[in-house]
Order: sequence, then C-alpha cells, then structure tokens
Amino acid sequence: MSILRGEEGPLNPMTSLNRQITLASRPVGLPKVSDFQLAYTVLPLPAAGQMLVRSVYLSLDPHMRDGMSAEPSSGGSVAIGEVMPGRAVGVVVESNDASIRAGDTVEGMFGWQEFAVARAVDARKLDPEAAPITTALGVLGMPGLTAYFGLLDVCNPQPGETVVVSGAAGAIGMLAGQIAKIKGCRVVGVSGPDTKVAWLRDELGFDAAITHTGATELGDQLREACPAGIDIFFDNVGGAIGDAVIRLINVRARIAVCGQSARYDLNTPEVGPRWLIQLFVKQARAEGFLVSSYLDRFPEARQQLATWLKAGRLKYREDVAQGLESAPQAFIELLQGRNEGKRLVQLSDLLAGSASSSRNARG
Amino acid sequence: MSILRGEEGPLNPMTSLNRQITLASRPVGLPKVSDFQLAYTVLPLPAAGQMLVRSVYLSLDPHMRDGMSAEPSSGGSVAIGEVMPGRAVGVVVESNDASIRAGDTVEGMFGWQEFAVARAVDARKLDPEAAPITTALGVLGMPGLTAYFGLLDVCNPQPGETVVVSGAAGAIGMLAGQIAKIKGCRVVGVSGPDTKVAWLRDELGFDAAITHTGATELGDQLREACPAGIDIFFDNVGGAIGDAVIRLINVRARIAVCGQSARYDLNTPEVGPRWLIQLFVKQARAEGFLVSSYLDRFPEARQQLATWLKAGRLKYREDVAQGLESAPQAFIELLQGRNEGKRLVQLSDLLAGSASSSRNARG
Repeated sequence: MSILRGEEGPLNPMTSLNRQITLASRPVGLPKVSDFQLAYTVLPLPAAGQMLVRSVYLSLDPHMRDGMSAEPSSGGSVAIGEVMPGRAVGVVVESNDASIRAGDTVEGMFGWQEFAVARAVDARKLDPEAAPITTALGVLGMPGLTAYFGLLDVCNPQPGETVVVSGAAGAIGMLAGQIAKIKGCRVVGVSGPDTKVAWLRDELGFDAAITHTGATELGDQLREACPAGIDIFFDNVGGAIGDAVIRLINVRARIAVCGQSARYDLNTPEVGPRWLIQLFVKQARAEGFLVSSYLDRFPEARQQLATWLKAGRLKYREDVAQGLESAPQAFIELLQGRNEGKRLVQLSDLLAGSASSSRNARG
Repeated sequence: MSILRGEEGPLNPMTSLNRQITLASRPVGLPKVSDFQLAYTVLPLPAAGQMLVRSVYLSLDPHMRDGMSAEPSSGGSVAIGEVMPGRAVGVVVESNDASIRAGDTVEGMFGWQEFAVARAVDARKLDPEAAPITTALGVLGMPGLTAYFGLLDVCNPQPGETVVVSGAAGAIGMLAGQIAKIKGCRVVGVSGPDTKVAWLRDELGFDAAITHTGATELGDQLREACPAGIDIFFDNVGGAIGDAVIRLINVRARIAVCGQSARYDLNTPEVGPRWLIQLFVKQARAEGFLVSSYLDRFPEARQQLATWLKAGRLKYREDVAQGLESAPQAFIELLQGRNEGKRLVQLSDLLAGSASSSRNARG
C-alpha cells in the first residue's frame, strides 16, 4: 500500500484532513496490500440534504472483492483511484438536513475513509442505547438480514432437519446457523482453521463443526456429522465445499446460494463435478438471493433479530482491526477465511463502542 | 442380444408364448445391444384383480438407463434377468377385475414384453376414440405431464421471456417448447443432428433451433439465438449444453432440471465449470422435479393438454421402431439423441393405432 501525499512521515490524524483507502490496481485472484493506496484529501463540506460523518467502525465484507474487478459479476466496478465502498457506523459531525443532527449515530455506505459526506436520506439513524452500535453492521445489519431471509425464506427450515452452513464462522454464517438452531434444526458448520470449530460448537451451540482442509476428507467428515443426510445447505463459499455437500443432499433439499467466496473472479472458469443431476434425482432446489430483494421486510426482520439478540439466543463475535491503514490486510485475511466473526475496522474512538478490542467475543 | 430358449430358428409369435426383453448385463456408459436378452416364456394367467394385456406400443424413455445401474440414482434397480420395465399401451385379452373388460384399451407399466399381467387398479383405461392411443404415452402421458408441470409450475413463464429447451426434439422437450410458445415466450430449442432443427423451427414454431456439435460453438449460437439472454432453461440433457446455457441466464432465471441424459451414471464423476456463483449473481433458481409429485393434478393437466392437442396448438412426432426385438437398438439411439420425437416400439398390430409407420410425423 503506497501513500499519496504526506509521505514525509507519520501524520497526525488532523481534523481538517481525511484519510481514505483507494483502489490502486485490479487484483488477480487474492488481492495484495499493494492493490490499495492510502490517500489524504481535504475534508468535503456537506451540501443541502447532506451530512459530514466521522466513521467509527468500517465493515469489511467478502463481496467487496467483486467490485474490485473490471467486470464485476454484480453491481458496479470500483474505478482505479476511487475510495473503496463499504458500510460503516459513524457520528454526524455536521448536518445540512433537518432529519439529522450533529452527534447522531448513523449507519450507511460511508466507504473506506475516516470522514464521509453522505445524503441524510441514504443513512439509517441508530439508537446507541438500544444495542451496541457495531450490531448495525452485524446481527442487526446486512449480515443479520441476509442470514434471516436466506435461511427462513429461501430454505424454509423444519424442526429436525439437518442444515449445513459454509463460512460458518463468518458474519452471515454464524447467524444463519444460530437461526437454524432456534428453528429446531441439527446444524453443522463448515469453517476455516481449527480454532473456530470449538467456538461454533461450544459457544454458538452448533451440533457439529468441521474444517475444510481437503475435499476428500471433508466428505468423510460431513458424512459423519450428517448421518441423516443434508436437507438445507446455506452456502457462503462454494468450490470444493459445495461439491462435497451437494453429494449428500436429501430428497427435496434446499440450497441457498448466499455467496461464493471460494471464487474471486467469474471470468476465470473453475471446474468441479457437475451436479445438476443431483438436483434432478433429489428433486432439490438451489437458489441465489440478494438481501436487497427483501427491502420491504427489513423492519420485520430487524425486530425479530433484535428480540433474539436481547434474549441471548443470538450470539456473535467481532474481529476488529485497528486503524484505517489496517483495512487492506484485514480484508485479505477475511477473503482467506482467517477471520473469527464479523470483521470490522475501528477508525476512531469517538464513541465508547461495543467492540473496543481485537477478537472481542460476545455472548 | 442373445436369445434364451427357442434358438433353433425364427419362431412364430405363438399366442401361448410371451416374448420379453430382459437385462443381460449392467452397461458401462452407453448400453450395448448385448446388454439385453430376448427371452421366451409361457404366458402367465391373471389372478383376481388382474388382467392379461397384449401390448401394442411400448414407450422408450431415457430415464430407463438409470434403472439398469446397480445403484440407480432414483427408483429401483432392474435385476439381471428381469424384464426391462416400461410403460405401454395395450389391449386387454383377459380380465379378472370387474372394472376392466377384454377388449379394453389400457395404459400401464407393462414392461418390454408382448404380454403382461398387471393389476387392473394400476392401469389407466383409455378411450381410443378420443385421441390416438399412442398419445397416452406422449402428449397425454408422462412426457406431456412432465413438460406441463416442469414448464408451468417450476418455471412460471411470462410473455416475452426467452426459454431454452435442451433435448428439444425429444418427447418432453418438443412439448415444453410448444407450451412455452402458447404462453407467449421466445423459444429456442437445442437438439441433436441438423435435420431436427428445421422441424422444430418450421413445424413446431420454435423461434430458433440449434444443434450441439461443440460446446464453444454452442455458446456462440445461443448468444445469437437469445439476444435478450435466457430467462428459463428447461433442461433434459445437462453436460456441456447446461454449462453453455447457464452462462447466459438473466437475473431471476429459472432452471427446471427435468433430466440429464448427458450423464449415464451418477457414480462416474464428470466435471464442468462451477456455476453456483451464477445462481448467486443472477438470483436465479435451479430445481429438480419429478412429475409424480403432481399426481393429484394430473386430471387438470391432461384436460388442458387434450384441449391444446385438439385445437392443433400442440403438435408431435413419433419415431416408431417395429417389433420387440428392435427395442434395445431403438433405446440406444434414443440415449444418443438420434430420435425425432417420441420413441415408441410397435409390438403388435392388434389395433389400427395412430403410429403405424416409422418416422410418422403428425401435425
């Protein structure tokens, strides 16, 4: 990561200067730190209807990799030199909109930068007393909503069914698994390094948790963890994990395709066993979904998620990196599945937020 | 194909002897004629509730290949020496059930044999005046019902949408495509040899028809035939055809997995491009289905199909082989996609049926 302007030494975070992470070059496969650039710019002024926000927590999400491609599979492409887009929670410094006041806590698409100017209408005002503000990027934010609709709407889980979640230690996966437990299912999580396994099983209450060290071994582990086969597959990863799970689906299985983090690039064909025949034979269904399709039901879902959260039925873990400059490396590790829980970057300590230290386990 | 008993010369089809095709050996990949055996047996007598049927037309269907495997992907395995199962239309010779009389025309699972004993309750009585009796194995039989529910229920076609049908010249595909036309869709058929293309386009009214000579070329042909992308894929074939189609699906596309004739054997893994990510990116759905799930709606569907048939809105072609001994070769050609229309075997001329000659085009 190179530094634009002010290379002459470590700068103080001056209130009159904004720091941003921009896209320096388009990655091939896994991004490198050098694909990002730290830039200093003058603070913009909010126009009518806009506000100036100082971000406290930035959310890092695997799908951001897609926008770094010249031809993203969905959404727009980030231009070279453009600030990396992303959701964040912050405090309003100055407002030119009647609905928002300085000091309000808001969540929105503020990007990988310390300060952002955004339209008030595009942000969501938070009550920092109701729940830790980081939950607006996790349980009560897009990850929570994605887990909620993907599991409940796409998969319609029934008590006693076996649910496999890939990327189970990720922001969405850990919630999808717990919601399946609430619905009375047997839940098996597939995740990265071994340390996560104990956490999923012992703290989140998954019935079994296994790691994907090799495709063949994974199949054996899955067979053992799912003696009655697999009724629901909540897939965040795809690749060899998807291959292994799909071999074991039951009649009328449902597969929610929530993400495919095993694939960085749609234009690079990757091969695997053809399994359309499995859908036919098992009368099964695989369905991709975007949480944005459920926009009109967000309030209903947030209310239910908040109720479960307060009742201690949804636990979560946050994996917090410190400082904007750590975002590129933290993002790369996220793509490698090396995070434990929702990956955030703390950009300021303006608020006594809920996630003040790294690897801050909750629940 | 070897002959059990009576090898001393061509036998007359004696009414007291039954001829059957049994499974001689389990095929690897495409079956060979030697995997079947022609056997002569004594005619069985119908017990109470049973009837003796002399079959007139035997239906050959690609899914029969599956039952020849030791571990079929669905349904039971045909034992070595057992009569090949299959649906047929025939005339009742003798009945021991009050609901059926000698001379009635019936359709049921009578197998690859000239005479069958079956329970009256398992057969369907036909009105030979209402429609040609072969339609009970085609438009008004399982192929018609499969096309009906697979297209209308699984895919929910809307006017103006683009529908691609693979195996388009087959018994199910030709009907799925025509039903899509009735629903106002743009219909593109993918089929085998070039001769079928003109028939699909000029006689059945498909908007375009293309052949699968090579995967790359197929992609180009599909792009040209589907300038607005693909909204619905009614898939009978899978393999490289499926790969090429799935690359071109639109947002919220629906894929009905009706069959996978490109795959003979579920236990032999075949690889292709991984496309779960396409479902995610396009919020698309792929669903396998079996027509038997819709049993309670068969009457409704048969009535609609019969109405369309009478109105000349559904045309069909039959590809009729002559004599039981031709069944194995006719079946192998069917698996190779060398049929044009519904493949039947005429076993007797007991009735002046609708399909008295080979390659009998209708409509």
